[in-house]
Amino acid sequence: MEQIHVSADFIFGTMATDSRRLGYVRAEMAGISHRYRMEPAAPRAGEPVRLFVTLGPSITADRVSVYYTTDGSEPAGCRGQPAPGSAVAHGHHLASHWDTLLWGYMEEWAIDLPPQPSGTVVRYRIEAWLSKGEGSLWYSEVIGATEGDGSVLGHPGPGDHYLREMGAEFNLTFFRRPRTCAYRVGDEGAPAWLDEAVIYHVFIDRFHPGPDRQFANPPTPMGIYGGTLAGVTAKLDYIASLGTTAIWLSPLFPSPSHHGYNATDYYSVEPRMGTLADLQTLIAAAHDRGMRVIFDYTANHFSSRHPIFQRAITDPSSPERDWFIFTQYPDQYVSFFGVAELPQLDLDHPPARQFMIDAARYWLEQGVDGYRLDYTIGPSHDFWTAFRAAMRAIKPDCVLLGEAVDTAEILRSYVGRLDGCLDFLLLQAIRRFFAFDEISASTFAIFLNRHLAYFPPGFALPSFLDNHDMNRFLWVARGDTRRLRLAALCQYTLPHSPVLYYGTEVGLSQRLDVRHADGSGHPEESRLPMLWGDDQDRDLLQFYRQLGALRRATTAIWRGERVFTHIDDQKRQLAYTCTANGATWLVALNNAPHASAIPLPAGRWEVALATQTADVIAGNVILPAYGGAILRRQE
Amino acid sequence: MEQIHVSADFIFGTMATDSRRLGYVRAEMAGISHRYRMEPAAPRAGEPVRLFVTLGPSITADRVSVYYTTDGSEPAGCRGQPAPGSAVAHGHHLASHWDTLLWGYMEEWAIDLPPQPSGTVVRYRIEAWLSKGEGSLWYSEVIGATEGDGSVLGHPGPGDHYLREMGAEFNLTFFRRPRTCAYRVGDEGAPAWLDEAVIYHVFIDRFHPGPDRQFANPPTPMGIYGGTLAGVTAKLDYIASLGTTAIWLSPLFPSPSHHGYNATDYYSVEPRMGTLADLQTLIAAAHDRGMRVIFDYTANHFSSRHPIFQRAITDPSSPERDWFIFTQYPDQYVSFFGVAELPQLDLDHPPARQFMIDAARYWLEQGVDGYRLDYTIGPSHDFWTAFRAAMRAIKPDCVLLGEAVDTAEILRSYVGRLDGCLDFLLLQAIRRFFAFDEISASTFAIFLNRHLAYFPPGFALPSFLDNHDMNRFLWVARGDTRRLRLAALCQYTLPHSPVLYYGTEVGLSQRLDVRHADGSGHPEESRLPMLWGDDQDRDLLQFYRQLGALRRATTAIWRGERVFTHIDDQKRQLAYTCTANGATWLVALNNAPHASAIPLPAGRWEVALATQTADVIAGNVILPAYGGAILRRQE
Repeated sequence: MEQIHVSADFIFGTMATDSRRLGYVRAEMAGISHRYRMEPAAPRAGEPVRLFVTLGPSITADRVSVYYTTDGSEPAGCRGQPAPGSAVAHGHHLASHWDTLLWGYMEEWAIDLPPQPSGTVVRYRIEAWLSKGEGSLWYSEVIGATEGDGSVLGHPGPGDHYLREMGAEFNLTFFRRPRTCAYRVGDEGAPAWLDEAVIYHVFIDRFHPGPDRQFANPPTPMGIYGGTLAGVTAKLDYIASLGTTAIWLSPLFPSPSHHGYNATDYYSVEPRMGTLADLQTLIAAAHDRGMRVIFDYTANHFSSRHPIFQRAITDPSSPERDWFIFTQYPDQYVSFFGVAELPQLDLDHPPARQFMIDAARYWLEQGVDGYRLDYTIGPSHDFWTAFRAAMRAIKPDCVLLGEAVDTAEILRSYVGRLDGCLDFLLLQAIRRFFAFDEISASTFAIFLNRHLAYFPPGFALPSFLDNHDMNRFLWVARGDTRRLRLAALCQYTLPHSPVLYYGTEVGLSQRLDVRHADGSGHPEESRLPMLWGDDQDRDLLQFYRQLGALRRATTAIWRGERVFTHIDDQKRQLAYTCTANGATWLVALNNAPHASAIPLPAGRWEVALATQTADVIAGNVILPAYGGAILRRQE
Repeated sequence: MEQIHVSADFIFGTMATDSRRLGYVRAEMAGISHRYRMEPAAPRAGEPVRLFVTLGPSITADRVSVYYTTDGSEPAGCRGQPAPGSAVAHGHHLASHWDTLLWGYMEEWAIDLPPQPSGTVVRYRIEAWLSKGEGSLWYSEVIGATEGDGSVLGHPGPGDHYLREMGAEFNLTFFRRPRTCAYRVGDEGAPAWLDEAVIYHVFIDRFHPGPDRQFANPPTPMGIYGGTLAGVTAKLDYIASLGTTAIWLSPLFPSPSHHGYNATDYYSVEPRMGTLADLQTLIAAAHDRGMRVIFDYTANHFSSRHPIFQRAITDPSSPERDWFIFTQYPDQYVSFFGVAELPQLDLDHPPARQFMIDAARYWLEQGVDGYRLDYTIGPSHDFWTAFRAAMRAIKPDCVLLGEAVDTAEILRSYVGRLDGCLDFLLLQAIRRFFAFDEISASTFAIFLNRHLAYFPPGFALPSFLDNHDMNRFLWVARGDTRRLRLAALCQYTLPHSPVLYYGTEVGLSQRLDVRHADGSGHPEESRLPMLWGDDQDRDLLQFYRQLGALRRATTAIWRGERVFTHIDDQKRQLAYTCTANGATWLVALNNAPHASAIPLPAGRWEVALATQTADVIAGNVILPAYGGAILRRQE
């Protein structure tokens, strides 16, 4: 096999180095920290709620008050006194602990809020204050960034050090301001269909140009290849053949880019990709085949060419000016990672919030079944709480999936607010184990155990091996499809819905790294045109079809109780059983460059699916190099 | 006032920078972390004990076992099976949380041990293991360092990254190895006399040369000035005049240095300083005046000229070889911060342990009342548990005070094992507030509240403004005695025993910085000869005498319930009341460069002691620049 240089993954960009993690932890912990920790995480009707708040060493306060409303209005108050229309709850000190990094004492506080009826949206603000002092300190969050130094917005607060530090590294200034929090009582959790889903992720411009049409051949991969909605429709049977139950479509609103994450209109279809009728045809045809359709929805920002932003910057008196956060009107404003072309909306400003909710509601009414929510961590939890309530009112079984490239704790903060989040942490662990050989079998196993137990039932964590923002798995596996099959075997035998990125199933790879350590790279390399016909790796495709079919037919292999029966760090082997309804399945993974035997538990075992070959001999399963198998115990 | 350049404090040297703190936290948390967290912290007879252990992301284990003994023997076991003579307790998983710095899940475990009779020493070892794997992971601690790279001792374990990082910065290699932990049931806490003590800290060579003798005039301050025990005895009335109830004597065993922290004999007196008879005279004369005598005891290391070490390195077959940790015999061995002249004893080796316990016991029998324990964090908690049991058996009201320049959590880990620890954290806060103007009044007040509440009753935290290892307070206050008085006023009105470093009370300062940021400096500058006669600042001395007398006479000003009545960050003012037995006292501190009024609570207030002047006018106390006062409410 040709020796290819592949860069290390750069998934968690803002937390990729020690100094960035240190900065992140400082920003989180130095001030008033909440991170939406509450018990229960998703309160039901009639349950009281306990909020948790941590005061860092620099927070000179001895009181914590929470102002809240249940009628949708903005909560307010000051130094323990609620404003008219708000209620107040006073916190009590639970415990203190020492923090070496911040070099001081952290105080844990609890604030108890009374039970509410189902459907109530409780909005709240957290205040810390010093009884013998003056003024208030408010819980705040990072709300965005501008390129360069920017001008300072509002008063610097605790955590500014982090902001400056990040700013220096990325040439960005980050802003934070007090934020309203919210939760909704009686959230039902993810609908059953998401639990059982197999999701196929289509990047429209690169998937299929439509019947009797060819991809264009743009001079660079940044150009338009010409994939269309009709192309997707034409390939629905192909998609369905992979066991797919839901299609995630990349953004399809009008946009100046091939990827569409910078919309100029939220109510129509990018003409290059087709018409509203084409979309309706696609949705109907998908539904006919029992497949749902998920849109990729960017609420946080849109194109600077969007008419609303254009009005905001050309008419100083336009009401739309308040939809954005100008640090120096009209030239400087908070934008997505400081990219001026992507102005960030202030979704805590009611008209902007309403706009983004209305557009999403509109497409649900057009038959869409849910959203993958781009850059979920940008808008506030208060926004998502309102967003979810509005979506659920239209379509109770729609799904809302977060794209939060963040810590497990932040992912968990969306419990009760979204149906789940794409599992970037599992992605990282899978790639480290199966592609980079960076972690041991026991480290991977222990991670899986802790990770899966960390999130409550009903919160979906769709799994994936790659997506449009990173090197493809096959690329980082240096083209070794054995490693890809092995990783997929693991992915499809874990509890959460697998997401399959177009082309991965037929050996689509790339030619250059998406990103080098120095920040340069070729971001479009993971979005090359889909392989069709003879270009496809048919063996790999056949394997993926079997895998999808087995997962669909046999819920026990992913829903069953998982027990690791074998972990060998020297041999880089793992095996786990899944047991449900009296049936026991075993997944054996030989993540090593040579054939090996993995011992089987007692019983008679039969191979149900192998990545390559698998033979049961004398209580072992014999697997080839980078080989894996699913076995079933005969009762 | 002359402009003097003064370097920033460098108290917590190993934790002075972000990278060092990050390294420290990594080393603490990445592996198996215990930090002697237990409930209760100091178990009484018949109380069960819960130990807490945290497994970091790199600990691939799903079982935690604790092997323990109650007969003094070494506990042992493997993968859940105790060795003969040991018992086992199996841990259970309490909770998991995400750690961003370590980028993974931390697991909290609890292990319950049964109740024991009073006086029992419970020794235990903590093991984490993977039920489907092999081998064991053991709780380990840093046990020492060698200069340079050294050779690696034992197997590198989790936390090695920290060790390397520290090594790079200090040119040291740190070693860790599995360690036995221990606690003793039924510890009585600090004796009452320590609670009420005012401690005077004498650095013998620099205090007084004795009647009719003069200090020598060595060419450098590293030389011998010639202070003697007879000199201390001659000045006992002076010492007592400060309200002193206990004298802490710097090391007085034979030693090649002026400071004595490198003993060559633990059973006699450095001849320069006097004879055993001189010491007996001093102890008797102190006791006659109601003052206790505390020795400075270094168990961790001694001089490389000590005969025991000489035997160890000259005779390869000598049993003393095992008292030390040789990484390459006889030239490389673990030593105090890599200083070859200070070989570190392996106090987990029974004969070495017995030697250090016997010597300490001997001096208690000679009339000494307790020990200040140099570099407490060097020897294991298991050692200190045995040490304390032995000392208490000889003299039930002796005191053992730790010198642990470490985090609050580590200080607290000595609860039940020592009577208390010198309060380096308060020292830092006082100097930041009163000398460096680095923190606000509210930050200082909040620190005090959290800090004092963090430690359980019965654990002493003697306070101090300076000592022999750092710039004197008056030096960092740029010679401003007003700031010194203000800081002392605060120190003497806090709960824990104040320690007064010789000379501070008469304006002794220095000429050069003890340590610059680049590591160079003049470490002996804070040990200049005591000022006597007309060299003394008599006003300052008079103030200190009043302060000592007031603290002695009026326990309410430090033992009472403390409430902050006034905090003003703009004006850098603080006031707190202390109430006990119906009497209310108020301490007002104007830490600002101009005169100001501090409002008084209701009532008629009378000034009891002022740093300079204090006038009660119309419900305020008027204080000069850097002025403070203690007031009493008239009932």
